[in-house]
Amino acid sequence: MTSGKLMEGKLMGVGVGPGDPELMTLKAMRALGEADVIAHFAKAGCASHSRAIAARHLRPGVTELPLYYPVTTELPKGCDGYRDALREFYDAAAAQIAGRLDAGHTVAVICEGDPLFYGSYMHLHARLSPRYAAEIVAGVTGMSGCWSAAGLPIAQGDDVFTVLPATLPEHELARRLAEADAAVVMKVGRHLPKLRRALAASGRLRRAIYVERGTTAAEKMIALAAKPDDEAPYFAVVLVPGWEQRPGAEI
Amino acid sequence: MTSGKLMEGKLMGVGVGPGDPELMTLKAMRALGEADVIAHFAKAGCASHSRAIAARHLRPGVTELPLYYPVTTELPKGCDGYRDALREFYDAAAAQIAGRLDAGHTVAVICEGDPLFYGSYMHLHARLSPRYAAEIVAGVTGMSGCWSAAGLPIAQGDDVFTVLPATLPEHELARRLAEADAAVVMKVGRHLPKLRRALAASGRLRRAIYVERGTTAAEKMIALAAKPDDEAPYFAVVLVPGWEQRPGAEI
Repeated sequence: MTSGKLMEGKLMGVGVGPGDPELMTLKAMRALGEADVIAHFAKAGCASHSRAIAARHLRPGVTELPLYYPVTTELPKGCDGYRDALREFYDAAAAQIAGRLDAGHTVAVICEGDPLFYGSYMHLHARLSPRYAAEIVAGVTGMSGCWSAAGLPIAQGDDVFTVLPATLPEHELARRLAEADAAVVMKVGRHLPKLRRALAASGRLRRAIYVERGTTAAEKMIALAAKPDDEAPYFAVVLVPGWEQRPGAEI
Repeated sequence: MTSGKLMEGKLMGVGVGPGDPELMTLKAMRALGEADVIAHFAKAGCASHSRAIAARHLRPGVTELPLYYPVTTELPKGCDGYRDALREFYDAAAAQIAGRLDAGHTVAVICEGDPLFYGSYMHLHARLSPRYAAEIVAGVTGMSGCWSAAGLPIAQGDDVFTVLPATLPEHELARRLAEADAAVVMKVGRHLPKLRRALAASGRLRRAIYVERGTTAAEKMIALAAKPDDEAPYFAVVLVPGWEQRPGAEI
């Protein structure tokens, strides 16, 4: 659903996939070729992941608009200062982009994974799509990249599939893991010891797979039960496959 | 994780995305160009959806292996005859593909959406990947295509996101919808009246969006509360967005 006025530019949320540049879509490639401005989120002082994925497909000399997050560490979500800083950041980023749109430019915000699935782009979309034409280019999600790299069938038939943030309390993680047929746990980071206990309590540790930076050159993958330490980056995921009735038992 | 022996071919599960051929990945394109055999599932008497998506990228004269499901109507899952027929079908399809792999061919099984997310390919993967090299090309899922076409941010921050089959009993649907921040309900078909009641009971009807054939030319999309009838094809989905705290309230 798009809306817009004459002479104004277009906002695009462009998914560039989980990390392997070959997992970009043809439509994302076209968007990169047609956009006047390419915007991307990054931590201050760091290269943008989405830009690294899309790098080889950027037009030489295209205008880039880097959007640097105001915080670089994982802060408690309830913290007022954190929320205020992020709100101001997204307001300012939306204003910068609105300026380009008012000038008639097409602005592509490139996003790791899929733009509307746990992505920062959504904060721009919510601010700008009521006023400007907006188009989304769906992308391969990070979790699809991970289970595909692992060759792990994740959900089948009438499975209930759930995505859980590892930030949940331990008993809540265990309860929800026990209730789902298949699950992906995100934002693992420092929550890995707690997650491990919740998986054990729910009987799901045995088949759980730990994946870091799936589909990239830095990919790491190991059965969680065999992982000897509890070190994990924030963006690591744990895959818990469903489809317990494999061929023979079911179909 | 792949395994294989010398001289044998390679099995590939290739996601071709939700319907719009432009939502195919570069890697899927390459796989289509390199495969000796392209296999695809279809209902008997019907054209394969995945083949239609990939059609413009098939090599002229490439060998195709259509795999026709033995049943064309939606039968109760518990029905023994149905299960037996499907098991025999997947066994026979796997045997056909194994013959090609033994001859040293690369066989690409093209799949709507993502191969390991509720896809028929998983039944071949489970039978063949223990014996042959297998590689998965992740794809944009049908649900990503749908919420992107709707411009609907589906999940954000610490949202719990759940995929539910509409086949669940009404009270179970209502309970799980109430417990999730965001949800996608699949296999809507004849279950739409029940799903509507479950959404109302869980307070989630107001923001629910009904989508048919998302990203294709036949796409239909409407707020479920405004949909005047309960007609729905089997593959229709209902999107229930999370992220209740939109900008202003949250960030």
